[in-house]
Amino acid sequence: MSLWVDEVYQGIVRTSFKLKKRLFKGKSPFQTVEVVETAGHGRLLLIDGMTMVSERDEFVYHEMIAHPALFLHPKPKNVLVIGGGDGGTVREVLKHASVRSCTLVEIDGLVVEASRKYIPQTAKALSDRRARVLIEDGVKFVAETAEKFDVVIVDSTEPFGPAKELFGPSFYKNVKRILTKDGIVVSQAGSPFYEIKTIKNLFRITKPIFPVVEVCLFNNLTYPGGLWAFTFATKGLNPRRKPVAARIKSARMALRWYNADIHAACFALPNFLREAIGR
Amino acid sequence: MSLWVDEVYQGIVRTSFKLKKRLFKGKSPFQTVEVVETAGHGRLLLIDGMTMVSERDEFVYHEMIAHPALFLHPKPKNVLVIGGGDGGTVREVLKHASVRSCTLVEIDGLVVEASRKYIPQTAKALSDRRARVLIEDGVKFVAETAEKFDVVIVDSTEPFGPAKELFGPSFYKNVKRILTKDGIVVSQAGSPFYEIKTIKNLFRITKPIFPVVEVCLFNNLTYPGGLWAFTFATKGLNPRRKPVAARIKSARMALRWYNADIHAACFALPNFLREAIGR
Repeated sequence: MSLWVDEVYQGIVRTSFKLKKRLFKGKSPFQTVEVVETAGHGRLLLIDGMTMVSERDEFVYHEMIAHPALFLHPKPKNVLVIGGGDGGTVREVLKHASVRSCTLVEIDGLVVEASRKYIPQTAKALSDRRARVLIEDGVKFVAETAEKFDVVIVDSTEPFGPAKELFGPSFYKNVKRILTKDGIVVSQAGSPFYEIKTIKNLFRITKPIFPVVEVCLFNNLTYPGGLWAFTFATKGLNPRRKPVAARIKSARMALRWYNADIHAACFALPNFLREAIGR
Repeated sequence: MSLWVDEVYQGIVRTSFKLKKRLFKGKSPFQTVEVVETAGHGRLLLIDGMTMVSERDEFVYHEMIAHPALFLHPKPKNVLVIGGGDGGTVREVLKHASVRSCTLVEIDGLVVEASRKYIPQTAKALSDRRARVLIEDGVKFVAETAEKFDVVIVDSTEPFGPAKELFGPSFYKNVKRILTKDGIVVSQAGSPFYEIKTIKNLFRITKPIFPVVEVCLFNNLTYPGGLWAFTFATKGLNPRRKPVAARIKSARMALRWYNADIHAACFALPNFLREAIGR
């Protein structure tokens, strides 16, 4: 047994976490799902050998995928999460008292099962009475549902395999259709350093569909390069608008990363990224 | 020969870069200095096995250690860099037309030699007529010099080995003494995720000496965790003050990372870091 759990990215960089114990490995029709216990990062959830969640720092990813949108929206009631079967995003969404229902649409039941069993830190949120877990294809769900949502969060893996269609224009046209008037959609968009074309593509695809599209940066200990991006598209709300800071401060929510300063800072983009998306 | 160049950090995480060629390895009285050519990150400079500089992303580190201070200061003329023998920080400092002289005090001549020979991308700045390179102990230099500086940049390795005293209070008392009226000192402070005690210590040490002490965050592809910190201490200037953005915009400097938005954003701290430093 290897003493390290290794992830090779693009053939040029390898990140390894000191292993204590392999807890689970299973193969679904979609992908390989693993959970390991590490010496310094708690438990990791890996999909096809790529670290998706580390107990040590998942709070950053999950706070940043949820709160900029949930605090920007004046009163989010119904939220849809596509992917994110580990439950961490749902946990953060449900911290908002206005939220009545958070629907998780995860294509792979094995991700939910493994998370429920081995990563309660994120998955316990899936047992909340306001959480609804559907094991089905998110692309099909947004194409067919008659429901409406205030915020849609695309908490997906990289743009290949089962997540491929989540990075296409017809998916986003359907997302716009199911969003309410002040609707917002946040999407995992890859690494500005290593995969800038994913960000560019998502930006290019969403820009003609939504009046406001921004890129939001966040940090991640266990993703290659440590800096990652979300695209942030709205039907009109400007993420820099004033009321957000006051709302964040008055909420007094238990958060380890996100605050009003971070909300403003996450939309600041370095020059090379601005140029890439034509800003 | 290994196909990867590996860096193990704290025994819990290992980062490896695909190797093309080992170019140089030497041992000075202070440390081991290496230069390797990688498949995806250009050349790397390693000190005691830790990556200090990668050609691919060194622009982020060097822009962020230099420009927030150099743009905040109304007219920086004389700048001191302690450490930073690779020359990248000097390169960024010299982009400011007001700078008449940039003194580099590097304890280890082998770092400068290896960089001049193998990493001209950063080291060519050391041949600028405004650059002065001194191979001596930075701690001793700041204790004894009669010169004054507008900005001091402590571009050091981690707080052990030859850099240890750069993290102590007597060093910072001397830095204050050699700073002019609007003086600023910026210091490499480690990882918020993995080494928060280094940031806390530097903050605790500098707070009684300087009226303004802030922490500034930046990204680094090749440092473990990808997020790193500088402390930013001034004799009175507030890094959030208004004139900075206008000055950055009017400078029209060729920069790949830093801009006015990034200047504001880099001082935004996550909750857990605020709590650690008592903010």
